[in-house]
Amino acid sequence: MKKLINAADSVVTDALRGIAAAHPELRVDPENRIVLRASGPRPGKVGLVSGGGSGHEPLHGGFVGYGMLDAACPGEVFTSPVPDQVIEASTAVHGGAGVLHVVKNYTGDVLNFQLAAELCAEEGLEVASVLVDDDVAVRDSLHTAGRRGTGAAVFVEKVAGALAEEGAPLAEVARVAREVNARSRSFGIALSACTTPAAGEPTFELGEAEVELGIGIHGEPGRARSAMAGARELVRTAVEAVDEDLPVSGDVLVMLNGMGGTPLIELYVAFAEVAGLLADRGARVARSLVGNYVTSLDMQGFSVTVCRLTGELTRLWDAPVQTPALRWGR
Amino acid sequence: MKKLINAADSVVTDALRGIAAAHPELRVDPENRIVLRASGPRPGKVGLVSGGGSGHEPLHGGFVGYGMLDAACPGEVFTSPVPDQVIEASTAVHGGAGVLHVVKNYTGDVLNFQLAAELCAEEGLEVASVLVDDDVAVRDSLHTAGRRGTGAAVFVEKVAGALAEEGAPLAEVARVAREVNARSRSFGIALSACTTPAAGEPTFELGEAEVELGIGIHGEPGRARSAMAGARELVRTAVEAVDEDLPVSGDVLVMLNGMGGTPLIELYVAFAEVAGLLADRGARVARSLVGNYVTSLDMQGFSVTVCRLTGELTRLWDAPVQTPALRWGR
Repeated sequence: MKKLINAADSVVTDALRGIAAAHPELRVDPENRIVLRASGPRPGKVGLVSGGGSGHEPLHGGFVGYGMLDAACPGEVFTSPVPDQVIEASTAVHGGAGVLHVVKNYTGDVLNFQLAAELCAEEGLEVASVLVDDDVAVRDSLHTAGRRGTGAAVFVEKVAGALAEEGAPLAEVARVAREVNARSRSFGIALSACTTPAAGEPTFELGEAEVELGIGIHGEPGRARSAMAGARELVRTAVEAVDEDLPVSGDVLVMLNGMGGTPLIELYVAFAEVAGLLADRGARVARSLVGNYVTSLDMQGFSVTVCRLTGELTRLWDAPVQTPALRWGR
Repeated sequence: MKKLINAADSVVTDALRGIAAAHPELRVDPENRIVLRASGPRPGKVGLVSGGGSGHEPLHGGFVGYGMLDAACPGEVFTSPVPDQVIEASTAVHGGAGVLHVVKNYTGDVLNFQLAAELCAEEGLEVASVLVDDDVAVRDSLHTAGRRGTGAAVFVEKVAGALAEEGAPLAEVARVAREVNARSRSFGIALSACTTPAAGEPTFELGEAEVELGIGIHGEPGRARSAMAGARELVRTAVEAVDEDLPVSGDVLVMLNGMGGTPLIELYVAFAEVAGLLADRGARVARSLVGNYVTSLDMQGFSVTVCRLTGELTRLWDAPVQTPALRWGR
């Protein structure tokens, strides 16, 4: 597996230099690994901070901007950010109305964000946290107690970010963030393993005729190995897993997410199947995203995330957003 | 190489069904393979039509919408659309002000668009054509006389689409489209071959320690094989090839494009190098795109496209656009 990098130990810093060069509307600190809006905190607005291991781009740095995050803290590849990053980011985005931490449920992320929140509180900075744990594939796993957090992070950040932009107080922004997570479920399938720059070898072995059902975004094992099958059958497995956990119905927001190495033409093939299966179950795809949003380096595969919408969530999803990876409405 | 598809012969139709499900603002005909704006032609506006083989998504269907294309005609994978598609699309988007065909320089595309234009003219529909031939890698190649057309198609469609939206006449829209092409140059490098669904095997052999310099977007040979190297060195090769052909200077629009199988974190690593090399040459990255825009199925690699901006081109680049793959400003 070849990688378009300079060196394994400089990948995150080098990528952040690229983000800085491409997005002057962001303020990027490649050394301390913080991505901020260049416009700075807005007085009276709740600040939104997220972060996690690198290798999932555009998550989270690609979602910093108007109507979404105020800051992202990227860790090393597949490694949690450290508390100092989170503290610095939280302080930088604090506009006097407190800060919401959006944390995917991985043990390292949970601990480091928690420690950062406690240290912020000691300095008088009010912090609320929302845990994202939408992945129905497995309960407890490598790196996680309980469910893993994956695609719903995008939905939580978008919807909570829109409410924060309207000037809602911290408790309200945290409430809607938790509601989005509670109404969202995900399931992913890997067609190939990913290769971290440091290891240089695939994180696991997957035969030419096999897929991993319920894959995690760091290559953690899923529910089972299965025989490679057509898009229709693979998508059915994912949608059924989601539907079994929280029956799909009504208007739904759907993300058909690529894992990083699967081309867009295949993601659209899969999305056609998702839309058909949801319609069969009486749900309507009211809003959707198709593309690479929560990746796992060069892994081939996809995940499906479904959120059961409400009127409020639809309105906030539709609100203007201006980030590198999501932009509309202004 | 596993593919997330149902069957090799239904990939394009299935993907178009997915595009239809994801983008209600488009009118997609999966059988006849035409992607249109659902809003229909606007009286007095020049219609923009492009197309080409599938496998390069989001090109061209992902660029249909306000401020860019009015229609796209996708052929089979790596195969030109047929004249009937182009005629039907041209007729559908004609708002009384004529139609511009944006054609990448591949022999099949050129012939089929030309035939379609002649047949449209016989029916009294005025058509102008612009040929995109920005790839400096090789002169003449498999499928092409002269230079191949690649990344500049995105720039041409965006800028000409903006001018058409303003109500400019056909001759003016064609003039600015040709100007964008004349000011743009591209060079691509493959780290891996791509695999077409029909073949099921890589289109060429590339060793673990090799890259293909000047790769075409269908896996056509480039200038040379070379040893795998770091991002800095590979990017230098691409930027030097572009600069040798048309010296970079002043304000430039730059696309660091992924070939489909290279993750975003690596594209940002490469973009940091592009920005540095352009600055060394006295050029300023005034506008940029980093991501998968003109892909080659699952190929790993990247291309760099540089356009020397003018005040007019910058203004039209910044104009509002609302398509699946590019959107801003409204």
